[in-house]
Amino acid sequence: MSVEVARLCKESLSHAMVGTEEANLQHGRDFYKYFFTNYPDLRVYFKGAEKFTAEDVQKSERFEKQGQRILLAVHVLAESYANQEVFKAYVRETINRHRIYKMDPALWLAFFTVFKGYLETKTKLDDATTKAWDEMAKVFNAEAQVHLKNSGLPHV
Amino acid sequence: MSVEVARLCKESLSHAMVGTEEANLQHGRDFYKYFFTNYPDLRVYFKGAEKFTAEDVQKSERFEKQGQRILLAVHVLAESYANQEVFKAYVRETINRHRIYKMDPALWLAFFTVFKGYLETKTKLDDATTKAWDEMAKVFNAEAQVHLKNSGLPHV
Repeated sequence: MSVEVARLCKESLSHAMVGTEEANLQHGRDFYKYFFTNYPDLRVYFKGAEKFTAEDVQKSERFEKQGQRILLAVHVLAESYANQEVFKAYVRETINRHRIYKMDPALWLAFFTVFKGYLETKTKLDDATTKAWDEMAKVFNAEAQVHLKNSGLPHV
Repeated sequence: MSVEVARLCKESLSHAMVGTEEANLQHGRDFYKYFFTNYPDLRVYFKGAEKFTAEDVQKSERFEKQGQRILLAVHVLAESYANQEVFKAYVRETINRHRIYKMDPALWLAFFTVFKGYLETKTKLDDATTKAWDEMAKVFNAEAQVHLKNSGLPHV
């Protein structure tokens, strides 16, 4: 099961590849342009960028780098998904690194809705691929909430 | 080529799995016990632990966590290796995160010698597997040094 989910997610992610070339950097910027345009309330988590427009993101060195970081994280999730213990360890590490941002714990699941929306701007997601992302999101969120709880942090 | 290298590295890493259970936590501690015992000079990079013995590592909550982090990073390298652009992006991200430690750039390649030595304490590495790790180390180091150079940092 997890092998097929991983395969479908990886295939769709091949349309938003990380890298040092301009086209790859743009894939990263495009995530934040999509994110901030469609979910402006969530800009509150990006100190100093609470009012950023898509145009601001486009010109921002910070979001060029941040774009690569977020894309890489999602690629790593897909690459590791077939090895569930590694995947879950990466989820926990991701949670640990976000501790300082005091995020609403409901956002961990919501992220995947945002990401699917972004990915739809890069490629068509067929039914099986959408379901694969939903499955990964569910497994991610389950591990995230358990780890938040075990870490004494707010969880849902 | 990279698929077979990934397969061999992943197989050997299955003997040093990450996780929340005691056996997994011990795999992580064991890395630092091996590291500090065999390369005591490199403890200088671990502020506050410059004189740590294997016994100190064993009792340390910091190195329980650090052990999981290092094992996870190596698992992610192996999981992503068949997708070279993702692998190289993870290398660059790893370099970025270590910038603050001002490491000798020669240590990026040397790390894999340490890691293979550790892994030998967990499982027998046959010739093909040793060569697979050497190949991954070479590709890792090539990307690491280019990225250090592009970042205006010391490189070899």
